[in-house]
Amino acid sequence: MVNIGLLGFGTVGQGIVDILNDKSDKVLLKDLYIKKILVRRLEKQRQVKVSKDKLTLNPQEIIEDKEIDIIVEVTGDVDLGYKLIKKALKNKKHVVTANKALVSKHFEELTQLAEENHVYFLYEASVAGGVPILKSLKDQIKLNSISKIKGILNGTCNYILTRMTEDGLDYSQALKEAQDLGYAEADPTSDVKGIDTLRKLRILSTMALGASIREEDIICHGIDRLSALDIKLLKERNMVIKLMGETVEVDGGYKAIVQPKALRDDSYFAMISDAYNAVSIEGNFSGLLNFYGPGAGMHPTGNAVLTDLIDCVANSQDKRSPLRDRKLDNRNKDIQGRYYIRVSNWKEDRYKLEGLVDEKVFENEEELAFITKELKLSGILNILKEVKNYAIVNIEY
Amino acid sequence: MVNIGLLGFGTVGQGIVDILNDKSDKVLLKDLYIKKILVRRLEKQRQVKVSKDKLTLNPQEIIEDKEIDIIVEVTGDVDLGYKLIKKALKNKKHVVTANKALVSKHFEELTQLAEENHVYFLYEASVAGGVPILKSLKDQIKLNSISKIKGILNGTCNYILTRMTEDGLDYSQALKEAQDLGYAEADPTSDVKGIDTLRKLRILSTMALGASIREEDIICHGIDRLSALDIKLLKERNMVIKLMGETVEVDGGYKAIVQPKALRDDSYFAMISDAYNAVSIEGNFSGLLNFYGPGAGMHPTGNAVLTDLIDCVANSQDKRSPLRDRKLDNRNKDIQGRYYIRVSNWKEDRYKLEGLVDEKVFENEEELAFITKELKLSGILNILKEVKNYAIVNIEY
Repeated sequence: MVNIGLLGFGTVGQGIVDILNDKSDKVLLKDLYIKKILVRRLEKQRQVKVSKDKLTLNPQEIIEDKEIDIIVEVTGDVDLGYKLIKKALKNKKHVVTANKALVSKHFEELTQLAEENHVYFLYEASVAGGVPILKSLKDQIKLNSISKIKGILNGTCNYILTRMTEDGLDYSQALKEAQDLGYAEADPTSDVKGIDTLRKLRILSTMALGASIREEDIICHGIDRLSALDIKLLKERNMVIKLMGETVEVDGGYKAIVQPKALRDDSYFAMISDAYNAVSIEGNFSGLLNFYGPGAGMHPTGNAVLTDLIDCVANSQDKRSPLRDRKLDNRNKDIQGRYYIRVSNWKEDRYKLEGLVDEKVFENEEELAFITKELKLSGILNILKEVKNYAIVNIEY
Repeated sequence: MVNIGLLGFGTVGQGIVDILNDKSDKVLLKDLYIKKILVRRLEKQRQVKVSKDKLTLNPQEIIEDKEIDIIVEVTGDVDLGYKLIKKALKNKKHVVTANKALVSKHFEELTQLAEENHVYFLYEASVAGGVPILKSLKDQIKLNSISKIKGILNGTCNYILTRMTEDGLDYSQALKEAQDLGYAEADPTSDVKGIDTLRKLRILSTMALGASIREEDIICHGIDRLSALDIKLLKERNMVIKLMGETVEVDGGYKAIVQPKALRDDSYFAMISDAYNAVSIEGNFSGLLNFYGPGAGMHPTGNAVLTDLIDCVANSQDKRSPLRDRKLDNRNKDIQGRYYIRVSNWKEDRYKLEGLVDEKVFENEEELAFITKELKLSGILNILKEVKNYAIVNIEY
């Protein structure tokens, strides 16, 4: 019997317990026992029922319980989660988490702490929800030099963009729909500004390239400036907008960026719709490997957490840190490409924009949309920083 | 130091050695040492060089060598491979193979033999070449009931169909091109008749559903009857033909079939082109998970073999058999759908065909192409067995 302490009992926590309740013929799961669950409130209407004596408001009852072997952290709270995980690792407990903001913020430290204490620190569910990408990536980096990693990593943004593309909704309508369906939080800032995507890219890139690539090393543009007009104009050119994160290794350095991209509508990533996530990695021997699946949801995310949990029990992953200490220079200043740019109230900014316009796409009294030549992004942003209201989309082809 | 005996030194064998020669900073690989290689001829021009004293014509020098810990079987020879693997497992050596025909033929027996001897029997490269599907599938079946598995599993057929679709080549031209490029063998029968796809589906289905689904339990139609006309007629209806294997669990039973399918040209599988392979699995908790990557090639396949090899060394997979002994009835007789059918010299068969035609697609003196209503496949084949020259394609939508 393996005793588990669950920190947090929200959507993912309840998903985990729900899957464990349905063992059917899955022999491995019969050994897993949820001993205690940390909650914020004891009395609360919940989708999944557990006996009341499992619930506690006191994390020490879990972290200091010598009978608990594995901690599953799904609080969604970065500071509390960090404090508890650190303590748990020092207490030689395995830790599984789905908390991407936490992993992103403390990746190197917690990874090292786990290695020093000879316990697992696993976080499959923190990137791309239910898509089993991290375990495969860990396998691939043992053999391959991964030079490229990219993906659609945020289900909320992908849902919003899908509704805007397929149903012609404007950004605010699509956001409201995503909130009504429970995809987007009441405060959607970290999703729509690209911060959640950036955190996942930071985790993926650091593992893939074997060098610390931190949040502040990644350029980040969200989707909150995009309008129905942008979607429509690019659709007329057979392009679909997706929020993508990508990191590329270049000679002695790397470029890392999160941005809306206009993709050919018959390309692979264009097809990833609704709340699905997708990740592609390119290794020198493996070639291009592509993974796609549910980016969120109670059961898919719970399932991802449980695959980690089973690996802790079966001792079937490497306990050594998958991180390496390569030093790579940040080359984001070299990022260049063709960009779709739309400026509102453009007439007051017309002289600033002159050098950027290669091909006009749309023009009326208020809006000017155009496509640039192949230009350095830093140069474009330098001009745009004096422009009040604009949207920018990288064109992939 | 881990000593490895390599059985076979063709494309995959040379890929393995080539990757091991390029260790760069991959510490884990430094421990792997290829001690002996079984070849058919000592003198032969090879892409990858090894010292001559490693080569042997005598398999016993490898199988009976007590210093060799792991056998890598890439002979491509079913009977020889089977004999040697059996011996190796009994000699308590781990075995890694890329030989899909062999795994398909002796799956249950070799899996059980490995479990009894407490050694690994791993075969990631036997299904979908470089796509890391089997390890992920093994993880998922510990938690999920997988009800559906489908894929594009043969790179040669997918290459041929891609050339026919994109360049309008006829079947025989496309096959010749595939042979010239080294994708297709001189005798392409097992690829184009769907047998290779069937073997991979047999392996995937048996693992996924937890019941023995053998080669003879799967209906199999290849691509060798398809013509440029079929591709063109379906393309006009925005459909693309792919050779797919799929197994679905239905109440108390399963249906399993390999067949050409006409897919909407904007669907996911329609996009998998050239020699790429793709596999999708659907679990009750995981949701729909999709994997795609190189279906063949020296380095991608060698890379897949080496991920297994590393798992043997690191002891990081479960040594227990992933197979279960569920009993499921074969319900292939219930398979039904809409089908595109083309009959050559159709006039002599016109009366037999009358009941099948729902919508005529093309008609001239020689060829009649039509689409059926939703009908049982067994009924259709019953009629077609008296028809000399026909092609049949399942319509997905």
